[in-house]
Amino acid sequence: MNPSSLVPQEKVDAIIESVRLAPTSSGLQPFELIVITNAELRSRIAEAAGGQAQITDGSHLLVFAAWDNYTEQRIDEVVQLNIDARGDLPMLHAYYDNLKKNYLSRDAEVNYAHAARQAYIAVGFALVAAAEQEVDSTPMEGFDPDVVDDILGLRERGLRSVVLMPLGYRDNDGDWLLPMEKVRKPREVMISHLT
Amino acid sequence: MNPSSLVPQEKVDAIIESVRLAPTSSGLQPFELIVITNAELRSRIAEAAGGQAQITDGSHLLVFAAWDNYTEQRIDEVVQLNIDARGDLPMLHAYYDNLKKNYLSRDAEVNYAHAARQAYIAVGFALVAAAEQEVDSTPMEGFDPDVVDDILGLRERGLRSVVLMPLGYRDNDGDWLLPMEKVRKPREVMISHLT
Repeated sequence: MNPSSLVPQEKVDAIIESVRLAPTSSGLQPFELIVITNAELRSRIAEAAGGQAQITDGSHLLVFAAWDNYTEQRIDEVVQLNIDARGDLPMLHAYYDNLKKNYLSRDAEVNYAHAARQAYIAVGFALVAAAEQEVDSTPMEGFDPDVVDDILGLRERGLRSVVLMPLGYRDNDGDWLLPMEKVRKPREVMISHLT
Repeated sequence: MNPSSLVPQEKVDAIIESVRLAPTSSGLQPFELIVITNAELRSRIAEAAGGQAQITDGSHLLVFAAWDNYTEQRIDEVVQLNIDARGDLPMLHAYYDNLKKNYLSRDAEVNYAHAARQAYIAVGFALVAAAEQEVDSTPMEGFDPDVVDDILGLRERGLRSVVLMPLGYRDNDGDWLLPMEKVRKPREVMISHLT
């Protein structure tokens, strides 16, 4: 990415808003988004990601951090949010009581894995929103999540980092991938029809 | 959903294309999409999903099915796809050889979990594409994946169902959720900034 190009705030806001609006299982939105411009933090995170230059060359770094577990309090906050928006409907309580019965007895790793999947829906939304804003984004899984969690103090907040997404503008001169053909499987390999 | 409204083929095609083009980790695209219009299959899948009516009321059912594991053959096919599109670059082999060293020794469940996450990026893309096409879609995790895998013969193909997504048109008269407020967490709850 071109280190001298700043993504305007209204474009970053549009990308953030797509993350906030992304649908999730039972509406729990079980993740948070950390938006980092701080240079020192980004440089420490880049070190934990094999030195990938986009993290420091971009102007903003998005960190998708999933809940480490489902808890009664977290689900109750979502119930309250629903009550505030839609009123105190009996079916609302029945629905989330049932959810608690299913989720709260499960292993934390199972719940974290489920929460992380929901974050990936929002990763998809952010990628589309960035493209629509003509902002370049590079989603990354290649980093040490324990180190990033530590740098950002995520574990204390019940969060675990799952995806990094630098935002910036491509370096038209220095990007060797730019002239390359996009590679995707043909439809007949990925898609099948049952009629 | 309104059972008498058919989604036109060109809109379904645009949604499918967004799934095919969604980015994935190392470009592996480790999932397939099964597009079902067959009424009997959809009715059996609906049974495995607690009778959720959208599956049979919609006109198309998308099934996102992740690879059950990474294998040498699957990765080699992606390498070949890259060679076909970009030429036989040495760095290509180095990259995917390293990937094989990391992935092929891992437990199948770890690799499946990673593949499923990639499918969720494409779920995000499909949701946005459906909205852009003004098609209603309802992503679902609430189904028995073993039964759905069995109905569709997915395990024999090395696949596991992760998300169902019926496509159709809302029933303006019968949808009790339609007049309700959208519920999402406020920005200050989900988003934090480190400047």
